[in-house]
Amino acid sequence: MADNKKMVEAITPMDEDFAKWYTDVVKKAELVDYSGVRGCMIVRPYGTALWENIRSDLDARFKALGHENIMLPMFIPESLLQKEKDHVEGFAPEVAWVTHGGEEKLPERLCVRPTSETLFCDHYHDIIHSYRDLPKLYNQWCSVVRWEKTTRPFLRTTEFFWQEGHTMHETSQEAMEETERMLEVYADFCEQSLAIPVLKGRKTDKEKFAGAEATYTIEAMMHDGKALQSGTSHYFGDGFSRAFEIQFTGRDNTLQYPFQTSWGMSTRIIGAIIMTHGDDNGLVMPPAVAPTQLVVIPIAPHKPGVLDAAASLRDRLKSVVRVKMDDSDNSAGWKFAEHEMKGVPLRLELGPRDIENNQCVIVRRDNREKTVVSLDELETKLPELLKAVHDGLYQKALARRESMTYSAASMSELKELADNKPGFIKAMWCGALECETALKDQAGVTSRCMPFEQERIADTCVCCSKPAKHMVVWGKAY
Amino acid sequence: MADNKKMVEAITPMDEDFAKWYTDVVKKAELVDYSGVRGCMIVRPYGTALWENIRSDLDARFKALGHENIMLPMFIPESLLQKEKDHVEGFAPEVAWVTHGGEEKLPERLCVRPTSETLFCDHYHDIIHSYRDLPKLYNQWCSVVRWEKTTRPFLRTTEFFWQEGHTMHETSQEAMEETERMLEVYADFCEQSLAIPVLKGRKTDKEKFAGAEATYTIEAMMHDGKALQSGTSHYFGDGFSRAFEIQFTGRDNTLQYPFQTSWGMSTRIIGAIIMTHGDDNGLVMPPAVAPTQLVVIPIAPHKPGVLDAAASLRDRLKSVVRVKMDDSDNSAGWKFAEHEMKGVPLRLELGPRDIENNQCVIVRRDNREKTVVSLDELETKLPELLKAVHDGLYQKALARRESMTYSAASMSELKELADNKPGFIKAMWCGALECETALKDQAGVTSRCMPFEQERIADTCVCCSKPAKHMVVWGKAY
Repeated sequence: MADNKKMVEAITPMDEDFAKWYTDVVKKAELVDYSGVRGCMIVRPYGTALWENIRSDLDARFKALGHENIMLPMFIPESLLQKEKDHVEGFAPEVAWVTHGGEEKLPERLCVRPTSETLFCDHYHDIIHSYRDLPKLYNQWCSVVRWEKTTRPFLRTTEFFWQEGHTMHETSQEAMEETERMLEVYADFCEQSLAIPVLKGRKTDKEKFAGAEATYTIEAMMHDGKALQSGTSHYFGDGFSRAFEIQFTGRDNTLQYPFQTSWGMSTRIIGAIIMTHGDDNGLVMPPAVAPTQLVVIPIAPHKPGVLDAAASLRDRLKSVVRVKMDDSDNSAGWKFAEHEMKGVPLRLELGPRDIENNQCVIVRRDNREKTVVSLDELETKLPELLKAVHDGLYQKALARRESMTYSAASMSELKELADNKPGFIKAMWCGALECETALKDQAGVTSRCMPFEQERIADTCVCCSKPAKHMVVWGKAY
Repeated sequence: MADNKKMVEAITPMDEDFAKWYTDVVKKAELVDYSGVRGCMIVRPYGTALWENIRSDLDARFKALGHENIMLPMFIPESLLQKEKDHVEGFAPEVAWVTHGGEEKLPERLCVRPTSETLFCDHYHDIIHSYRDLPKLYNQWCSVVRWEKTTRPFLRTTEFFWQEGHTMHETSQEAMEETERMLEVYADFCEQSLAIPVLKGRKTDKEKFAGAEATYTIEAMMHDGKALQSGTSHYFGDGFSRAFEIQFTGRDNTLQYPFQTSWGMSTRIIGAIIMTHGDDNGLVMPPAVAPTQLVVIPIAPHKPGVLDAAASLRDRLKSVVRVKMDDSDNSAGWKFAEHEMKGVPLRLELGPRDIENNQCVIVRRDNREKTVVSLDELETKLPELLKAVHDGLYQKALARRESMTYSAASMSELKELADNKPGFIKAMWCGALECETALKDQAGVTSRCMPFEQERIADTCVCCSKPAKHMVVWGKAY
């Protein structure tokens, strides 16, 4: 067995077992492997290349808005974690504790950061003194650790990779604007680079981040109708500033507390890519972040001139797209299946007759549409085709979300939908925690967000019939 | 005080106290700040931008040679760390141990990775089966943790950032070639991108990496004559392969163990940049990795048209160099000192008379040479001037190393040099550990490397007078 070539193995069909389909895809497309450490994944080269593309795209968006990167320690002393009450309550139960350095017992336990608000605030305390020091627009790319009971690659892992922006502002107004601006950055990134349509909205108090005054979210709908929270942006007010005694002398010469935000997107977004665009043949990569955008497959590669022509085509196209050639000795059919599994957006087939006719065949991954393209026109055609794949993916995902979004005016209607129709349910809410909890207990749905684009489905709360305050999108979630 | 503008503070002169000069520079140039966690540093935006430039330069060199990035867990189970005997003996005394996840005591302790050989090998065990799976050329960018007693920013910190390449090969020959190739990559990077001349050589057995068969190193000389090990490349043979039972079916259909290398460069290299090029005015950044290559300083910015002209010049030059404009309300003199402290390679001064004459003044950081340049010629002149700064830095460092490298034919000569002349000492060695230890005990020097370019200083060992096997470069080291 060891000496045989691996075969493209079948994956479980989505409709048969969606969870199994997911783990088949992440494993067989070689995005991740399991490690010997409970709940920690190995992100393999293909998955790492995808994350690097996501990272550099997002990083450029952050820097264009004046954000700077910084690298803080991975450890937080226990006393520092405890400085903000809500925050420590939210995170202490799920952190990893370092108790020994070498042979020595530490005088104070250190936790491996589950998030870095406390470290940023400790630093801001030292470097913010005057309004001239504001705003501070910092971001960090790192991994964080949360001791999860059940884990799944990308969706929920003990260690995961992310970026965390932490900013400080002179006024509450500026901080609120930053919170909303960064949510828009995430939404634009999802739609423009990942072809994932997202709902933008505000989290209810129950669902907001530990220590935040307000949490904004983008929610995407997966193939199975479940929601995936894809990025969040938090407004902290001056709560942490007060807890960490961060003060600055204002323009009016009085001592003031700055206002804070934080925002993050993680390797979870790779789970969203997989479950939004994937199909029964495997991954479908959105072109903007695909590690390989085009794979060149020589047809009848033993025929004279074919391999050379394919190689020189690949070299020529390097400045246009991220291109690879598959010159392994596998069959063409095997190669098609392999690169479909990996979700490469475009496949270019080049055989002896194509070379004679100065043309090639290009096949789109998303809909398998074939186009015959003159070799002279590739430089203009390839970007167009990548754009077409992107648009195709986005429109398909949007249409699915729209067709799987329902409205409920009464509790019985909502329960009926929750039991029988996977997807999002729009329903009115009075704002009371009791009603939110009742929906969870009785219908198994949680509030995903109060969308910025509100509609008036009814006048009263779907649960208690008191006057409604918000339209909420409810659903099951990853 | 909080409301006053910070002043450019004086730094301790090098000659007065080199260690103090170093910590003044890293702190006042805002590369790092100390954190509340013992031995862990905060790498501030300016230091992070420098590391990002180093990283993307090196990463491109690795990828051009076919290496792929991967992301492995930060934790290593205790049993996994113990699989290779020499390795665990080298690292176990200095690792951080995680004993609890949330409230729960873990069934097995996890260490925070001090290096990742064991994790790579565990993964390689799962994915290497046939000679067709080789070579595996993997690299990882991450931080690692070693519980250090005394720490100094960049030079020795509990947590530090690095890349670690780990490769697997079909034959010992290929692995040896990879080990040497990657040392050359590091040497080229230091010389071409950092303007740091390095000695290439092999470590003695005493100084080699825990678990390696051979360790190669590049050694740079700092301003004070001490050596800084700037990058290492290790040949492992098949020791780890055997310990981790990594086997593949070879071309002859027999089961074989692959041969392994690892190689790393860390944030220590920032210490090398500082102590090679810095001076009493602060940092001097090598142009290829400088976060800002050119700072534009408007002179008499209150005069009409000056600020606008400076801003449009900055915008025009963005595609040529990494450029910033300082339009703060500090004095020109203050700005000059500030950007000298930060080591910006070129300063462009633009005042009303310059604008009239369609010219500007450019000042080099390394030697303060001024050039008047026509505004029409900046696109060609700036790259030339950056190259001149690079060459100037390299030549200065090389001349210093040469003038501070001595030869010793006898032990008394060597002791005399070690006591009175900071720098490198070339001397012959018989290869015995006892002599190496004697030099450390009697003269306070350690073997830096056995340079690839060997010379014959004498016929006998400087210590025991037995026949000499190698010329060794000895010195004091960071």
